[in-house]
Amino acid sequence: MPQLRIALAQVNACVGDIAGNSRLVLDQAARAAAAGADVVALPEMVLTGYPVEDLALRQSFAAASRQALDALPGQLVEAGLGELLVVVGYLDADEAGPRNAAAIIHRGKVVDRYFKHHLPNYGVFDEFRYFKAGDDLPIVRYRGVDLGVVICEDIWQDGGPVAAYGDVGVDLLLVLNGSPYERAKDDVRGELVASRAREAGAPIAYVNLVGGQDELVFDGDSMVVDAGGTLVARAPQFVEHLLVVDLDLPGGRPERDDAAPAGFEVRRSTLDVAPERDRTPSAGPTLAEPLSDEAEVWSALVAGLRDYVRKNRFRSVVLGLSGGIDSAVVAALAVDALGPDAVHGVSMPSKYSSEHSKGDAADLARRTGLHFQVQPIGDMVEVFVSQLGLTGLAEENVQARARGVTLMALSNLEGHLVLATGNKTELAVGYSTIYGDAVGGFAPIKDVPKTLVWKLARWRDEQAERRGETPPIPPSSIEKPPSAELRPGQLDTDSLPDYELLDDVLDDYVESDRGFDDMVAAGFDAGLIEDVVRMVDRAEYKRRQYPPGTKISLKAFGRDRRLPITNTWRERQP
Amino acid sequence: MPQLRIALAQVNACVGDIAGNSRLVLDQAARAAAAGADVVALPEMVLTGYPVEDLALRQSFAAASRQALDALPGQLVEAGLGELLVVVGYLDADEAGPRNAAAIIHRGKVVDRYFKHHLPNYGVFDEFRYFKAGDDLPIVRYRGVDLGVVICEDIWQDGGPVAAYGDVGVDLLLVLNGSPYERAKDDVRGELVASRAREAGAPIAYVNLVGGQDELVFDGDSMVVDAGGTLVARAPQFVEHLLVVDLDLPGGRPERDDAAPAGFEVRRSTLDVAPERDRTPSAGPTLAEPLSDEAEVWSALVAGLRDYVRKNRFRSVVLGLSGGIDSAVVAALAVDALGPDAVHGVSMPSKYSSEHSKGDAADLARRTGLHFQVQPIGDMVEVFVSQLGLTGLAEENVQARARGVTLMALSNLEGHLVLATGNKTELAVGYSTIYGDAVGGFAPIKDVPKTLVWKLARWRDEQAERRGETPPIPPSSIEKPPSAELRPGQLDTDSLPDYELLDDVLDDYVESDRGFDDMVAAGFDAGLIEDVVRMVDRAEYKRRQYPPGTKISLKAFGRDRRLPITNTWRERQP
Repeated sequence: MPQLRIALAQVNACVGDIAGNSRLVLDQAARAAAAGADVVALPEMVLTGYPVEDLALRQSFAAASRQALDALPGQLVEAGLGELLVVVGYLDADEAGPRNAAAIIHRGKVVDRYFKHHLPNYGVFDEFRYFKAGDDLPIVRYRGVDLGVVICEDIWQDGGPVAAYGDVGVDLLLVLNGSPYERAKDDVRGELVASRAREAGAPIAYVNLVGGQDELVFDGDSMVVDAGGTLVARAPQFVEHLLVVDLDLPGGRPERDDAAPAGFEVRRSTLDVAPERDRTPSAGPTLAEPLSDEAEVWSALVAGLRDYVRKNRFRSVVLGLSGGIDSAVVAALAVDALGPDAVHGVSMPSKYSSEHSKGDAADLARRTGLHFQVQPIGDMVEVFVSQLGLTGLAEENVQARARGVTLMALSNLEGHLVLATGNKTELAVGYSTIYGDAVGGFAPIKDVPKTLVWKLARWRDEQAERRGETPPIPPSSIEKPPSAELRPGQLDTDSLPDYELLDDVLDDYVESDRGFDDMVAAGFDAGLIEDVVRMVDRAEYKRRQYPPGTKISLKAFGRDRRLPITNTWRERQP
Repeated sequence: MPQLRIALAQVNACVGDIAGNSRLVLDQAARAAAAGADVVALPEMVLTGYPVEDLALRQSFAAASRQALDALPGQLVEAGLGELLVVVGYLDADEAGPRNAAAIIHRGKVVDRYFKHHLPNYGVFDEFRYFKAGDDLPIVRYRGVDLGVVICEDIWQDGGPVAAYGDVGVDLLLVLNGSPYERAKDDVRGELVASRAREAGAPIAYVNLVGGQDELVFDGDSMVVDAGGTLVARAPQFVEHLLVVDLDLPGGRPERDDAAPAGFEVRRSTLDVAPERDRTPSAGPTLAEPLSDEAEVWSALVAGLRDYVRKNRFRSVVLGLSGGIDSAVVAALAVDALGPDAVHGVSMPSKYSSEHSKGDAADLARRTGLHFQVQPIGDMVEVFVSQLGLTGLAEENVQARARGVTLMALSNLEGHLVLATGNKTELAVGYSTIYGDAVGGFAPIKDVPKTLVWKLARWRDEQAERRGETPPIPPSSIEKPPSAELRPGQLDTDSLPDYELLDDVLDDYVESDRGFDDMVAAGFDAGLIEDVVRMVDRAEYKRRQYPPGTKISLKAFGRDRRLPITNTWRERQP
């Protein structure tokens, strides 16, 4: 029975950096060869990064991707890597249009190409807009083994190319992915890959991107399952990793091309190969343990923030520190992502700020070691209030906006990226000031409900204690009742329901798109739901009128609702 | 030869206002019946408004649309309109998913339904995300005449249901549309409708929405062409209109259902009708003259602004008046859209503002009759500059941001919607301050290049003179060299190429998505293109880091580029 050593390169590609991503491919190929691998597979569209959105439609961009792909076979030979079978995702374009493509490279040539069959167009995906679908089933015979290739969504659809490969028969299926992180998605993904392996009657080697890209985070979670669906190897999440696995594969299959269902084009190539090399036995496959829920979310937030800053070529961030839980958690995330020297915290007290707020902000700075300054906003606010005669909400908002102008001025002076500190719950119900605390280029916890913010804070402090380090988040920021401090004695609970209950309702209304009647049937108090639904509808409406400075997704780690700005429909009329 | 009197109801529906839109349908049906019409057709998705974006995926919203549709036949009978054949667009949903649907209603029943076949998913359209496609070809025999129905995109695709109706044979094709305005689109649309009529071998009655919806404006342009493609009637653009036309139609066709191409489901119904009524002859069809380019663009901007304000339930707007051409044109548009009493202009001079700027702002206020106040920003700016030690760009930006905070404070106090006054050219090259002059809930001229801003200003003043009215825009705002006045003696030409040339390059790079080499081949100076491309790329990058307060479309009246925020690819490296 032929044995193949497979390497899966779980890498952090950067959208648009075609030259850098090409170097990444060459580097991973060299590492795979050094580990004695016969095959190395890289993720979906690794050459361009993913997702490229409207760049897919720019001819000069597609041409640049195609050029980089055409150069790869020669570069691999030059580096002494011609014998390695390299499977790599890239952006192609032909007469039909742009293609989400994979190339199979060997001995200085592109042996065959695969164009993704199923183009997802739901949630965060818009691929039907950008790509034309393929219908080919390339099969490459390499060292006696028949290999097939599919891309990401192809395994999420029934009756697709996996089933067709199963009908025709292959010995191993390579799956190239750009599959974004969602909470607990790794469980779903594992079961899916196992069931597709059984459907294909062959092992599946699944390789995924890792790292942050705009509002998405890729968690990796690359894996190999055998033909029976049993997990053989799994890479750790949220870090780059080369997963190397030895597989015994049947090989020597009869060619049953006529077994392919209608609409699929089987195409075969057989590769000349050097005799098998002597190589050291592999160390045995990695089988990474899944992370806890809190560890997984924290890692996703850190990876998303770090890559947003790094890939956009910032070196540092600045944020307002109120002494409250939200800014404390964002500061701790930023320090974990970038180190304390790259994080600048600004306390901006007003006449309504309590002593404990100012103290807690300073305590956070001491605990984390970030740069800290105090800029009172009293004089700024006073000029606006007296010249314009502001009262009530207008006066409350001008405090938040003076802070926004201050952070942007420090950003202009010193080049930091401004972080907005709003959490998902307050953004959902509109407990936030546009052009005020919403100011910022990135909002690290905009997808995190308030109750999860507390849970993450406790978890992060416990982790620190377990390691004998100083817990970054001041206990009093976790324990005290939350307040916006825009007027004397103000508490969040003056305007909002209890956060546990509120997050429960939001989960139903926003995450699950449930209607009013459904939610009442689920046992919620009708009056409470009326209140929450009205707040969310009003906030969504205001956010559409004045789109805030950061993109806001109310779905957990997902796509923002795309709602018409002008929309008089309400789940509950006011 | 049977004669039918057709009424096309070109109406301004409001997204989400299902009750209001139902009343609109009943009202138009009554007006059509009063005009002696046999048939009234209303636009695509008129019951929900269009486009509904993610609302299509909310079950409670689809149920509300379906309920309103189910109630219509009874309401029509109650109003004595049961004999009228009513064809109306709405949102349906069945097991397969949401449908972009049309219902044919007669004598208290929904006689048949049509589900849109072609779902556009380019430019401003995302219908593949929202709807499932249909494959039915309903044919209704009414007063001896065979009627077919299709929806919007169905006529923009070759080999679609129009050709299939042509194969089977119909006497008249009704086309329901939600077709947004683009410059000079009416010419393209007219030719297309004519060619489809020839393909169907039948006259086409084409009815379109009118009015603003978020960033789209529907221009109406409803029309009837005969089977030979000749224009018979045309509604005026940008206003509601009931277009009534008498058509002599052959009728008495043989039923050739087997002539339908594979994949289409022909379905027939024959309607009982009352004997033909006596009615007065119609006045003869309207044949509205096309508008000039300037008149068309001005009307689109006025309609877009008016409906944005009205449908979002604002009563008034506030904007900064600098004395320059951009704010003058936005003020004139606002006054045309809402009347002078609903427009509040604020002059916010700094120490760098020239006397002529302050004078021109006041002159504009006198000419248009809008509310005017002066709020100097010197004291506000001084506090930030001295406390934070601001210089250079940080000092320039704080001036623009003090103005933004002032406008938002007045909005909070008095309830106005803030208008941003930036034009497309300066937004494209990043000549704008985020959270400063970009503040606003709606940016009326964000799709208008600077050279067109001047052209529109001259055109509007000439129109006024021709009618013996005061030209709204001060001539010196049109004639003087443009300046941001954020430092002494500053002129736009210090930082930007000549606007004529700049708009030419932007048209190629942004509108036509041309690459660098293409543009050089088209005869532009390579150095100039390098400069412009670098400015646009940098501005796009900044705008992605700090999304501005208004949505920005760099395409004329089209969809914004959806680009990844993190994207290191540049057409030209810096």
